[in-house]
Amino acid sequence: MKILQTEIVLKPQPRGFHSITDEILRQLPDGMADIKAGLCQIFIQHTSASLSINEDADPSVRNDFESWFNQTVKEDEPIYTHTYEGADDMPAHLKTALLDTSLLIPIRNGKLALGRWQGIYLGEHRNNATARKLLITVFGE
Amino acid sequence: MKILQTEIVLKPQPRGFHSITDEILRQLPDGMADIKAGLCQIFIQHTSASLSINEDADPSVRNDFESWFNQTVKEDEPIYTHTYEGADDMPAHLKTALLDTSLLIPIRNGKLALGRWQGIYLGEHRNNATARKLLITVFGE
Amino acid sequence: MKILQTEIVLKPQPRGFHSITDEILRQLPDGMADIKAGLCQIFIQHTSASLSINEDADPSVRNDFESWFNQTVKEDEPIYTHTYEGADDMPAHLKTALLDTSLLIPIRNGKLALGRWQGIYLGEHRNNATARKLLITVFGE
Repeated sequence: MKILQTEIVLKPQPRGFHSITDEILRQLPDGMADIKAGLCQIFIQHTSASLSINEDADPSVRNDFESWFNQTVKEDEPIYTHTYEGADDMPAHLKTALLDTSLLIPIRNGKLALGRWQGIYLGEHRNNATARKLLITVFGE
Repeated sequence: MKILQTEIVLKPQPRGFHSITDEILRQLPDGMADIKAGLCQIFIQHTSASLSINEDADPSVRNDFESWFNQTVKEDEPIYTHTYEGADDMPAHLKTALLDTSLLIPIRNGKLALGRWQGIYLGEHRNNATARKLLITVFGE
Repeated sequence: MKILQTEIVLKPQPRGFHSITDEILRQLPDGMADIKAGLCQIFIQHTSASLSINEDADPSVRNDFESWFNQTVKEDEPIYTHTYEGADDMPAHLKTALLDTSLLIPIRNGKLALGRWQGIYLGEHRNNATARKLLITVFGE
């Protein structure tokens, strides 16, 4: 059983949901190809951007995610008291909580065992974010 | 430390939330009984059905989950553009994102260390789905 | 590769979101300090309290979480049928499903590799809860 860990930096993205499947696949740790059975964790070290796994074929799904989350987690709600970092900040924390900070994906025969339609989304919930850092941990045998 | 991986196919279910605790327990990998301390990941390879852990004693909780998620993630929202796979499709992707694609449950003394009231739900979010595939990965020592 | 497991009991909290980062750090298993690369799972064995990772610097974020989740997952919804455990019970199950039952955090050089602003929240969703039990599993090498 071995364990491999690597830090990656995603290219900065505008607010919205983005497929980062290819960007992740290119940067998985060397040595993952030798793992017959294992797991890969992808962890985002931020509180206003999220990870999730969803339909990766049609970009309209990601556009509808952005519309739905904006409609459901509104800016400028009268209940918000944490407002000094901008109108997009508190909704960004809530969206991150509803989505995920960590993904765990099985590894089979050296590859991520995603389903036929599954891919990895970055949810960038701030209007003007800088590059987001991920920590990837792979283990298995 | 050992790692075991197995693919299982759930019996097809109608739209709604279903307890799959017993179905999972019956199909856990041989050899898990020998693991004193470990973890069990359950991963669903689909983007319109979800996994979650919740109250497994009273089926009325699962019925209320279906009612609440239908009320909160509505069909035929004017904001949706991804509509060609049916009115239930885009809400199914959103519900899957709000719930989980992957569960991670501790193993103690060869058994899943679920709390007294916890069980495993399949959220089937499509009206006419076929059987759903899960990949189970167990490791520990 | 080693694996360590420990059960901890959190001090009882009133309804709301609470930072438990320091309480967790104090009770991580002995031996985690020796793990250069690994993962730490924190699992809550309850169905009406949640875990999540979010902004840990300003308590107003946690207050706004409580306000937003109360506004979004209302008590006394006419759709609820599971009502005999109190008006706060069914919303507590739904909030737990929207948030998390399990956190997985990378370990680097013997420490949790949380981002600059990240901390661990307990979401206590019942009005009068007793102490909550967590199972912590740490592994790596």
